[in-house]
Amino acid sequence: KRQGFPEVIYGEGKTIEQITAILRAIKAKQNDVLITRVSQDKAEVILESHPELTYHDIAQILSWKAKEKKENKEGFIAIICAGTSDLRIAEEAAITAEVLGSNVRRFYDVGVAGIHRLLDQAQMIQEATASVVVAGMEGALPSVVGGLVSHPVIAVPTSVGYGANFQGLSALLTMLNSCASGISVVNIDNGFGGAYNAVLIDRLAQGKEK
Amino acid sequence: KRQGFPEVIYGEGKTIEQITAILRAIKAKQNDVLITRVSQDKAEVILESHPELTYHDIAQILSWKAKEKKENKEGFIAIICAGTSDLRIAEEAAITAEVLGSNVRRFYDVGVAGIHRLLDQAQMIQEATASVVVAGMEGALPSVVGGLVSHPVIAVPTSVGYGANFQGLSALLTMLNSCASGISVVNIDNGFGGAYNAVLIDRLAQGKEK
Amino acid sequence: KRQGFPEVIYGEGKTIEQITAILRAIKAKQNDVLITRVSQDKAEVILESHPELTYHDIAQILSWKAKEKKENKEGFIAIICAGTSDLRIAEEAAITAEVLGSNVRRFYDVGVAGIHRLLDQAQMIQEATASVVVAGMEGALPSVVGGLVSHPVIAVPTSVGYGANFQGLSALLTMLNSCASGISVVNIDNGFGGAYNAVLIDRLAQGKEK
Amino acid sequence: KRQGFPEVIYGEGKTIEQITAILRAIKAKQNDVLITRVSQDKAEVILESHPELTYHDIAQILSWKAKEKKENKEGFIAIICAGTSDLRIAEEAAITAEVLGSNVRRFYDVGVAGIHRLLDQAQMIQEATASVVVAGMEGALPSVVGGLVSHPVIAVPTSVGYGANFQGLSALLTMLNSCASGISVVNIDNGFGGAYNAVLIDRLAQGKEK
Amino acid sequence: KRQGFPEVIYGEGKTIEQITAILRAIKAKQNDVLITRVSQDKAEVILESHPELTYHDIAQILSWKAKEKKENKEGFIAIICAGTSDLRIAEEAAITAEVLGSNVRRFYDVGVAGIHRLLDQAQMIQEATASVVVAGMEGALPSVVGGLVSHPVIAVPTSVGYGANFQGLSALLTMLNSCASGISVVNIDNGFGGAYNAVLIDRLAQGKEK
Amino acid sequence: KRQGFPEVIYGEGKTIEQITAILRAIKAKQNDVLITRVSQDKAEVILESHPELTYHDIAQILSWKAKEKKENKEGFIAIICAGTSDLRIAEEAAITAEVLGSNVRRFYDVGVAGIHRLLDQAQMIQEATASVVVAGMEGALPSVVGGLVSHPVIAVPTSVGYGANFQGLSALLTMLNSCASGISVVNIDNGFGGAYNAVLIDRLAQGKEK
Amino acid sequence: KRQGFPEVIYGEGKTIEQITAILRAIKAKQNDVLITRVSQDKAEVILESHPELTYHDIAQILSWKAKEKKENKEGFIAIICAGTSDLRIAEEAAITAEVLGSNVRRFYDVGVAGIHRLLDQAQMIQEATASVVVAGMEGALPSVVGGLVSHPVIAVPTSVGYGANFQGLSALLTMLNSCASGISVVNIDNGFGGAYNAVLIDRLAQGKEK
Amino acid sequence: KRQGFPEVIYGEGKTIEQITAILRAIKAKQNDVLITRVSQDKAEVILESHPELTYHDIAQILSWKAKEKKENKEGFIAIICAGTSDLRIAEEAAITAEVLGSNVRRFYDVGVAGIHRLLDQAQMIQEATASVVVAGMEGALPSVVGGLVSHPVIAVPTSVGYGANFQGLSALLTMLNSCASGISVVNIDNGFGGAYNAVLIDRLAQGKEK
Ligand SMILES: Nc1ncnc2c1ncn2[C@@H]1O[C@H](COP(=O)(O)O)[C@@H](O)[C@H]1O
Ligand SMILES: Nc1ncnc2c1ncn2[C@@H]1O[C@H](COP(=O)(O)O)[C@@H](O)[C@H]1O
Ligand SMILES: Nc1ncnc2c1ncn2[C@@H]1O[C@H](COP(=O)(O)O)[C@@H](O)[C@H]1O
Ligand SMILES: Nc1ncnc2c1ncn2[C@@H]1O[C@H](COP(=O)(O)O)[C@@H](O)[C@H]1O
Ligand SMILES: [Mg+2]
Ligand SMILES: [Mg+2]
Ligand SMILES: [Mg+2]
Ligand SMILES: [Mg+2]
Ligand SMILES: [Mg+2]
Ligand SMILES: [Mg+2]
Ligand SMILES: [Mg+2]
Ligand SMILES: [Mg+2]
Repeated sequence: KRQGFPEVIYGEGKTIEQITAILRAIKAKQNDVLITRVSQDKAEVILESHPELTYHDIAQILSWKAKEKKENKEGFIAIICAGTSDLRIAEEAAITAEVLGSNVRRFYDVGVAGIHRLLDQAQMIQEATASVVVAGMEGALPSVVGGLVSHPVIAVPTSVGYGANFQGLSALLTMLNSCASGISVVNIDNGFGGAYNAVLIDRLAQGKEK
Repeated sequence: KRQGFPEVIYGEGKTIEQITAILRAIKAKQNDVLITRVSQDKAEVILESHPELTYHDIAQILSWKAKEKKENKEGFIAIICAGTSDLRIAEEAAITAEVLGSNVRRFYDVGVAGIHRLLDQAQMIQEATASVVVAGMEGALPSVVGGLVSHPVIAVPTSVGYGANFQGLSALLTMLNSCASGISVVNIDNGFGGAYNAVLIDRLAQGKEK
Repeated sequence: KRQGFPEVIYGEGKTIEQITAILRAIKAKQNDVLITRVSQDKAEVILESHPELTYHDIAQILSWKAKEKKENKEGFIAIICAGTSDLRIAEEAAITAEVLGSNVRRFYDVGVAGIHRLLDQAQMIQEATASVVVAGMEGALPSVVGGLVSHPVIAVPTSVGYGANFQGLSALLTMLNSCASGISVVNIDNGFGGAYNAVLIDRLAQGKEK
Repeated sequence: KRQGFPEVIYGEGKTIEQITAILRAIKAKQNDVLITRVSQDKAEVILESHPELTYHDIAQILSWKAKEKKENKEGFIAIICAGTSDLRIAEEAAITAEVLGSNVRRFYDVGVAGIHRLLDQAQMIQEATASVVVAGMEGALPSVVGGLVSHPVIAVPTSVGYGANFQGLSALLTMLNSCASGISVVNIDNGFGGAYNAVLIDRLAQGKEK
Repeated sequence: KRQGFPEVIYGEGKTIEQITAILRAIKAKQNDVLITRVSQDKAEVILESHPELTYHDIAQILSWKAKEKKENKEGFIAIICAGTSDLRIAEEAAITAEVLGSNVRRFYDVGVAGIHRLLDQAQMIQEATASVVVAGMEGALPSVVGGLVSHPVIAVPTSVGYGANFQGLSALLTMLNSCASGISVVNIDNGFGGAYNAVLIDRLAQGKEK
Repeated sequence: KRQGFPEVIYGEGKTIEQITAILRAIKAKQNDVLITRVSQDKAEVILESHPELTYHDIAQILSWKAKEKKENKEGFIAIICAGTSDLRIAEEAAITAEVLGSNVRRFYDVGVAGIHRLLDQAQMIQEATASVVVAGMEGALPSVVGGLVSHPVIAVPTSVGYGANFQGLSALLTMLNSCASGISVVNIDNGFGGAYNAVLIDRLAQGKEK
Repeated sequence: KRQGFPEVIYGEGKTIEQITAILRAIKAKQNDVLITRVSQDKAEVILESHPELTYHDIAQILSWKAKEKKENKEGFIAIICAGTSDLRIAEEAAITAEVLGSNVRRFYDVGVAGIHRLLDQAQMIQEATASVVVAGMEGALPSVVGGLVSHPVIAVPTSVGYGANFQGLSALLTMLNSCASGISVVNIDNGFGGAYNAVLIDRLAQGKEK
Repeated sequence: KRQGFPEVIYGEGKTIEQITAILRAIKAKQNDVLITRVSQDKAEVILESHPELTYHDIAQILSWKAKEKKENKEGFIAIICAGTSDLRIAEEAAITAEVLGSNVRRFYDVGVAGIHRLLDQAQMIQEATASVVVAGMEGALPSVVGGLVSHPVIAVPTSVGYGANFQGLSALLTMLNSCASGISVVNIDNGFGGAYNAVLIDRLAQGKEK
């Protein structure tokens, strides 16, 4: 496992018993913890026996950091999306990046249909070491961001939409076909994966890893 | 048939003999003519017997207008695309609109990956009665245009691209899922259909039809 | 935002709290309101605190108009469908068009399998400035309407059907491939989008917008 | 094999040698012959050694009938399509039905976008024992015919079209989802199969088979 | 409407109120009634106010016949399937055919994986005027039946199966590609449609319709 | 590499130079050779410099065996298909199995639409240690064979067919959904892979491998 | 039915009444029993009347063996998967193989993303007569196992995953396209089928069947 | 444009005239040049007038560097693939990365079916700042590499394969669903895009860009 990284548990489909069993094993090792895809209901039960964990309700993440690390001072990862529909995935990315030790700035109201809000933020976004761009529906946002910045863009399609969206297929194809350079794509709704890639890049940029 | 509209022939898959036979019938009626999807080779043979026709080589259209109409003075249709790859379809739309009697302005270098070129033209595009936006690859352009203008946008996906583009499916889905309002979509590579819809709208805007 | 248009909220996936928060903000500005995709249950709770709103139960729309506008006297939009299965989407289109300020006439029993009912209405439909044709199953209705009228037809595929319908894909493909000219298409079940396009056209036809 | 039916050979992908070898075997048995999907080039070579065969060039069929049967006097099969693009498949159906012994009437200019031409023929079509309706693009014609007649309709989707037609998938789905009763469907471009089913029905209607 | 045929209502998605309203209208006309896709729950409520109706629970059909017709003495339709999983659709077909006035024989345990059970019944099946073959999973049964009989076979794919079955797509494609002649196909799970086509054929075979 | 197995080269997309270079390397080791997917043209050039190779033209395979092995006396693999269209893939399987050292028996005229030809051969097929069943179009043959034998069946879908066959997808799905037990599937047109699996099984049955 | 094999019932979609009825019939014949896809709830009711059955809760299988057979001493089937998500299907395979009379060894923590755990077990896996490799998500495990062993590998894709996994399609395609030889594939989630094939092979390897 | 980066031209579908026109414009600016997707034929003509360009025939790239830059001394990008079929895309990536100024090491014989060759190279691959992993067929290689390294992996699916590969869809889905962390994906056959992303990361790791 990558040195300094927390233990990551994919909570979906795991019972409360399975999660707490894994938690006990990890805590014995004094390791940080990141549990994704935990519903509010499950989280509340787990928090009773593990009150030291923090629950991020929009992100649906349970996390614990052994000590608050003070690193990555200079750089940050930009998490970008168009609005409230994509918030769960954007926050899954944001919290993941923070627990993995990167600074994060959120740009959450910058859709392609109102391009000026994005342009107003463009200069600050350009300062990031990497951008995670989360988009459902037609998924066009990464193409526009990719044209504005010169750092790597990780595109995260979401399943938000209906009809010819086909559960995120539309956004996924859009991102894979982007005519802007410097964009790569992860699975539909995979906010965790988008952030993980961005953190690897951010750490390289901070000079912490070869 | 719509009064004042030319006879339209879909040239694809028709032989030179079939096209010239239809042409003879039409010319007898002194009707205007629009023949789409005619290859350079076929066009040259047809022009030998019908030298009064004009061949538009990028658009692959053969046309003839009984008399140069001077109408639609004030309004125009904006034909918009990102660059050379989509030119054939954009020109199919532009020539169709012109032969059908509308004024046309071309905006042919305004892709989403270089958003500022589009913004530089936004004010002029807003003056149009309708926009026909042609895009392949990820097909994101209509969403951005739709957010900038308040007239109807007809989106034309093209089959330009490769891999996960799936012969235009990617661009088609993008356009159908656009989060901008006021966008409707025609078939992949259907520049003719995009223009036809725009002309119907333009004529309504000119007050020529109820 | 388009001058004179109401604020539009897409209600799907928004909580009652989120919707009422947005409503308070809008009402402060004395703006008209259109909220689509609101279930009966949610609507009833919202109506308690906002009794001035009107709930259209088939359309699943909540709306409010600051003052009853008296415009678009002459023209109207035709909303056309084959019967009860497509009613929810047809009404989403009809109410949307009315709240946006257009006159609407409903033609709700005119399917392709009983072509004579459609033909009986053809003359009146031809008077419209635009038609919104809503169809599920095989989605053939826009093709027939398109052949009968000379104004723009906005086709709205619905997800009504089963088996090889694939949640509306069948109707969507039918409409995109229509051999009638003057037809453009919006997303599956997007009655709102169909009406929005038709209203833009209707306003141009009334001479209210360039 | 069905008594009184010719030997049927699917010519696609068979060499001239393979076809002539099969022909020799059949002719020895004095059996009728129907060879589908034979290109003009191949047909010409085969005709040199088998001049008694007839080549139907639009249908791309080679056939031979031992003696001209005079049966099925009263009934006929209607072969219906919208125009020249679908002619090859319509003729494959028509010639197949004739060689299999049925009377055929062709209705070849009756598309859904010009519904009145179809209605003008409706009364005669209703006289048929079965209809074979051939359609590409959106494939809506069988739905309209199905609503006009009370005999079985065999729908044959064709691969004619482009873009979102997906090589006939669009027409196929349309026909499978038809809201008219009494329609069944065969494979894309399978004019032979459409006719074969219609002939079985026609023979039952003539009282020749239980 | 076809003379002598009952009123057919597609019950899916209709409320009890809607169905009883339609029933009242029909009964006033002394017409036969066939309502498909009615769940047990809904049926029980409807039967309270319409005790003269019969509910066929496997077929999920409610029906009423004004008088027991005694016709089609000689011929019958064969309804064929492989076993219990496809029973609901097979019975939808069988009851539909009976209410529409045809004789029916059921062959319900004759799958391709145990071919001898089918062969044992082959001779009787050959006596039918038409076969309706219902199959899910791989959907191979119509091909085998088609090779054994010389009357028309209507193939009904079902959505029974899992994984690469894709809700009946597998069976549907199998049937469309059948290498046996004389097979046509209706929509996935459309037992009603399969029977309707067979009844039209059966009536022609009985000499009741031209 | 498996002891006693030849070197296998996938010829598709390899130039004559690449293939002869590999051949030289192998021959130096006195190893057996199997080259699949070699066109007649390429084979002829290769045979000039390597006349000791044998070209199997239907299978499109070039092979060489260091010495004629006399093993696997008792068992054999059954290669089964419906007719000439699937011959290339069936022969790819048959020659592969032979070069890999198994006995092979061919059953090449046993389609599902003429079930009796298959039943006539059933007893002999049951004697095999494994069956490779090759089928295009609807791909139903493995289901029927699987029901008749109690040894493992390897199903090989082929791309033979047209329309809704979708280049072999139809046959592939059919085989994956087979309701007969004891069937597993390889890639479309992968006759080599089907045979390879059967040979592994045959060798286990001969007691040559643990 | 195969001699010595238990009666197999596919429990999915069968009611408790249907299952107990079949059980009574089987027990009368003193036959072994294997019932797959039985939920905990259903199993508990059935066990009340049939306490001699054993319920395997992860596998969701009910089974009964007339007498504990002591056979297949030497060989075993390897059941291989990457971890807890695929456990239900892996256990369906393992229990099936055991009830059908084979020895089984489980290798349940050997995913491709941690290749060394698999390599640590490779030597023991190579001793198997056949491997059943169960994998969801990207489904890459069979390719790696196939490269390490020289016995037949049966690959079982699972529907575990989300987004572009498309309910197991991703894993299924991966396995069908494997570049390792000696791999064949069964339907998504078909642990039963994977084991059935492996048992047939194992029995051949034990010399119990020709 | 990114400072220090060459002008990039996508050669596919551009004529020799178009390319040389662009070249003249670029050369006037003394800018580096990278032209992808140029066939041997086209390259030879272009080289006549631009002999200073270098043609990389496997990569199908034409390039020119104003001066040989000596930078990125320490780090390198690993380009990884399984063998000759994926070479064209792997080389498109390798040459792109070199022209863009990064060091490259090629690992071209390390497929998943022979895992030990990959493991032998694992230590050196771990030294890279980023890996570009190119794979067709089942596309499993990035998952295994991702588990072995702790730097970002850019996965490039290729269209190499046949049948259920569906022109690269299989490899694409595999990569999007990878259970290893730190993997992102670009379009099918997009070696250029894979390298571009890796170079952005490599430059960040070298401390040349914020
Ligand atoms: N039924 C609908 N379907 C699709 N888009 C809609 C619908 N209703 C509203 N919209 C769009 O959604 C936007 C508002 O979205 P939101 O800000 O999420 O409430 C509006 O401006 C419309 O463009
Ligand atoms: N155009 C066609 N499309 C589909 N099937 C056909 C066609 N023509 C002939 N067939 C079928 O192909 C069978 C003959 O195939 P074959 O033995 O390969 O020549 C005939 O019995 C028909 O069932
Ligand atoms: N989990 C399973 N997945 C697929 N097929 C199964 C499964 N379990 C049993 N079967 C098959 O289903 C048959 C029994 O089906 P049934 O007669 O409907 O109970 C058995 O002979 C097996 O071939
Ligand atoms: N092989 C390739 N695949 C995808 N995109 C490419 C490729 N080569 C170049 N590009 C992109 O195409 C752009 C140039 O496109 P164009 O202006 O049409 O020549 C470059 O800036 C790249 O972003
Ligand atoms: Mg960029
Ligand atoms: Mg707009
Ligand atoms: Mg019209
Ligand atoms: Mg009818
Ligand atoms: Mg038959
Ligand atoms: Mg068997
Ligand atoms: Mg192996
Ligand atoms: Mg890693």
